[in-house]
Amino acid sequence: MKIKIEVSARHIHLSQEHLDSLFGKGHKLTKKADLSQEGEFACEETLQVVGPKNKIEKVRIIGPVRPRTQVEVSKTDGFMLGNIPPLRVSGDVVGSAPIKLIGPNGSVDLLEGLILAMRHIHISEKQAKELNLKDGQRVSVSCFGDRGLLFNNVVVRVKENFQFFFQIDTDEANSAGVENGDIGELIVKK
Amino acid sequence: MKIKIEVSARHIHLSQEHLDSLFGKGHKLTKKADLSQEGEFACEETLQVVGPKNKIEKVRIIGPVRPRTQVEVSKTDGFMLGNIPPLRVSGDVVGSAPIKLIGPNGSVDLLEGLILAMRHIHISEKQAKELNLKDGQRVSVSCFGDRGLLFNNVVVRVKENFQFFFQIDTDEANSAGVENGDIGELIVKK
Repeated sequence: MKIKIEVSARHIHLSQEHLDSLFGKGHKLTKKADLSQEGEFACEETLQVVGPKNKIEKVRIIGPVRPRTQVEVSKTDGFMLGNIPPLRVSGDVVGSAPIKLIGPNGSVDLLEGLILAMRHIHISEKQAKELNLKDGQRVSVSCFGDRGLLFNNVVVRVKENFQFFFQIDTDEANSAGVENGDIGELIVKK
Repeated sequence: MKIKIEVSARHIHLSQEHLDSLFGKGHKLTKKADLSQEGEFACEETLQVVGPKNKIEKVRIIGPVRPRTQVEVSKTDGFMLGNIPPLRVSGDVVGSAPIKLIGPNGSVDLLEGLILAMRHIHISEKQAKELNLKDGQRVSVSCFGDRGLLFNNVVVRVKENFQFFFQIDTDEANSAGVENGDIGELIVKK
């Protein structure tokens, strides 16, 4: 089964509270571009992400606001920042790594929220049923070409309106020699 | 069959001619540490690697000098430098990407020499014969853990005294969640 690959660069999801602290009370995110999943969008707003060793400028915010602030980086970014965060399913930030964010109106010192995102596929409830896949299940995805490889431990994420995509970070894309929009093959071991 | 993983950070192999230009006529490389392959060593000397977009400071030189200068970076580094080099077996630099090197005594503008290194295993002639592996053949290596994956298109490099190692770059190590010295499993498809 073919699946489209989506490469996720480092990005930030903000809570309204942190958005207020960083951009000013009541600030609303400005949409720059829609993303593949319904309702998600890249914002005009960016932040500085500051680790114990280095900082990374202009890290894109992804809207809309969420209940919890979450900063997703690659492991390469983690080495650069000076803090290698744990590997987590998006949303699971409890006990993850600390990080500092700096915006035009102020800064926020997060005690947790910095993660490496687990590679995953998004799939709608309907399609998951057809393929007999369950939320949280692990599958594999094969990538082809000179740097061909088989990603194991790919988490299945099921939601009513999810578009069918395989999401990986920049380290994963670079090591597999693939780019945004390339096609992989979903493999479900029995 | 178990194989030890070696993670290769960005590094530079220099010709004597370029060593002379960068550090002064007749300069001899200073050994900092021996590497896993006999005769190879990390040097005290480092260089600035300058791309069209950004530069990377303090890139380590690996000795001894070689007939051709070669700069090995990750694809992540390539994006940062502003030039994504082609994927090559080490030593195959003809028609690879241009890059500028700056040393304490001068700079060198290479018309070619910047590459992404193809993942590979080193193996001695004796052990290759025992495993029925030929130089240039492709095999696979499996890595385990939360980011477990199977690297395909791993090039076999056979030489009399090669130590048995699986060599990958930092993007590959980070995407597989492995570190220098971890153990993978060599898989030869029949």
